[in-house]
Amino acid sequence: MKIAVDVMGTDYGPQELVLGAVQAVRAYDCEVVLVGDSEIIKKLLEEYNAADERKITVHHSSEVINMDEHPGIAVKTKKDASIVVATKLLRDKECDALVSSGSTGAAVAAALFGLGRIRGIERPAIATPIPSLTGTTVVLDSGAKVDAKPEHMVQSAIMGSVYAELMLKIKNPRVGLLNIGEEETKGNEQALATYPLLKAEEHINFVGNVEGRDINKGTVDVVVCDGFVGNVVLKFAEGLASAIMKLMKEAILNGGFLAKLGGLLIKPAMKGLAKRLDPAEYGGALLLGVKAPFIICHGSSKAKAIKNAIGVAIDFAERDVVEHIAGNIVKSRKGNEEI
Amino acid sequence: MKIAVDVMGTDYGPQELVLGAVQAVRAYDCEVVLVGDSEIIKKLLEEYNAADERKITVHHSSEVINMDEHPGIAVKTKKDASIVVATKLLRDKECDALVSSGSTGAAVAAALFGLGRIRGIERPAIATPIPSLTGTTVVLDSGAKVDAKPEHMVQSAIMGSVYAELMLKIKNPRVGLLNIGEEETKGNEQALATYPLLKAEEHINFVGNVEGRDINKGTVDVVVCDGFVGNVVLKFAEGLASAIMKLMKEAILNGGFLAKLGGLLIKPAMKGLAKRLDPAEYGGALLLGVKAPFIICHGSSKAKAIKNAIGVAIDFAERDVVEHIAGNIVKSRKGNEEI
Repeated sequence: MKIAVDVMGTDYGPQELVLGAVQAVRAYDCEVVLVGDSEIIKKLLEEYNAADERKITVHHSSEVINMDEHPGIAVKTKKDASIVVATKLLRDKECDALVSSGSTGAAVAAALFGLGRIRGIERPAIATPIPSLTGTTVVLDSGAKVDAKPEHMVQSAIMGSVYAELMLKIKNPRVGLLNIGEEETKGNEQALATYPLLKAEEHINFVGNVEGRDINKGTVDVVVCDGFVGNVVLKFAEGLASAIMKLMKEAILNGGFLAKLGGLLIKPAMKGLAKRLDPAEYGGALLLGVKAPFIICHGSSKAKAIKNAIGVAIDFAERDVVEHIAGNIVKSRKGNEEI
Repeated sequence: MKIAVDVMGTDYGPQELVLGAVQAVRAYDCEVVLVGDSEIIKKLLEEYNAADERKITVHHSSEVINMDEHPGIAVKTKKDASIVVATKLLRDKECDALVSSGSTGAAVAAALFGLGRIRGIERPAIATPIPSLTGTTVVLDSGAKVDAKPEHMVQSAIMGSVYAELMLKIKNPRVGLLNIGEEETKGNEQALATYPLLKAEEHINFVGNVEGRDINKGTVDVVVCDGFVGNVVLKFAEGLASAIMKLMKEAILNGGFLAKLGGLLIKPAMKGLAKRLDPAEYGGALLLGVKAPFIICHGSSKAKAIKNAIGVAIDFAERDVVEHIAGNIVKSRKGNEEI
């Protein structure tokens, strides 16, 4: 298993990406190809005592796509950008999966242009796993396509079901449509038009509408929503979780000696919880619907997140998620034609 | 100041609403009119030793609108429903503000039919205050209108600014548009069309796009969004906050003796924090854009939330929020005509 890593993204620079890759080859049975400025990468590999690591190869690329560039234009004009070059390696089967962490827009554009869509999928979707009270819920789309059409939402539901089955090992995963009420008659135009399509779709286990509060409850395994809503909700989750933790720390520090002592005593228990809630543990989101395993990491990913993302990329490739999506979309289309 | 309370809503029945109202007349300088089944209300007043309370009057209504009814139809056909009768009292100036807590859809419909919109406001919006790291952020619309047009979003921005100025005492409140990126070119069709309108609006302090994570950061004072997005986000916030608290308790309980001791020691500090994060402390959301002060409480409101909502209703009426919205909409329209 060989994973390409675009090391020129993230807010923390190549050092975190290269370090994460080094940690990954030591932890997993895999090879990595580091794509980016080879001079920088080689220096970092020396720094991390990994210059002679056989499992790591360096693939030079001279350009970088910045966060403020128009994704579509940048991907087309910067032919030697690290994300474009890494995607080409994936397309040419020189590697089995890709881990990216720069601009999400540029990553989606590079995947669309470089790999193409799975037949039957009109729009790819970003699937993000988030912790729930009972395990993990996958939310998609978390930002690949805003103003999604009802058919795109159905395709997301099919892809999310494959994800939950193969990556989370959930049999017959429950799928919910994110909405403002449980009743079939509730929602915006998009949700109202999507509901009957999901209900008619035989190849998923659609259980109806779910509300915002169900995401963390674990009411369903797959939450389907528009890319705009998914993106807003997931960024809000980050902000809220960190705000609660910050306010808690403040409350304990301002609570006097006993509260401070209590804070120390609960620290080990809180560490386990923090690990469970830490997005870095989940190692990035999956871009589903394109023709090869493509992972998108958060722009603020550090080495641990990158290492975990490489682990997810290995699973993504080994479990044939792409092939299963292609197969299930065909089944769904046949079913619809028969109706 | 006289506040009408529809006591037939909420998941916990009239007992919580009547109790909240009794607590309110004892805490604030106000009168309340309890609207609903007079027999039930009178029994409850006796139970709470408030049968002779001069500041409380009972107004009988024989019908109730249930959560599963179509709001528009129910409001038109059930002429003696508690929310319809209470709204009529408000319209006829027999009271100064109204507190409701049944079906949000029915409340909005009753307000629209019974009170009418402020001239220049095409759609009312629900404004919900939520705690941030620096104070309070008001999010609107949190569910009155899905598929809002860009002009509705601008009207929300104007109403939200008045709310922040008068209710939160923030001078020249910063307004942000909830979006998936900071750049003007990002977003769905609705956001892209709304941005230039907000930018051109002279009577608000529009600072640009904000993302989900900004809501709790306190980056802006007013967050403008579509009713679908606002509703999903706020329900998600509830779910996430309670999930974090639940997981924390579990982690402490499973963390052994020292963790449990620590949990006891931080309890007083946590109580203060819980109070700050408790939606009940904020006492309901304001329905802005209709011709009189109308408060919508959460369906799961208990007595404390109702009492606080009555407090908010008093401020809502005393600070002339409705009149200021009417004035600012006129100013904004004049400005636009001059352009």
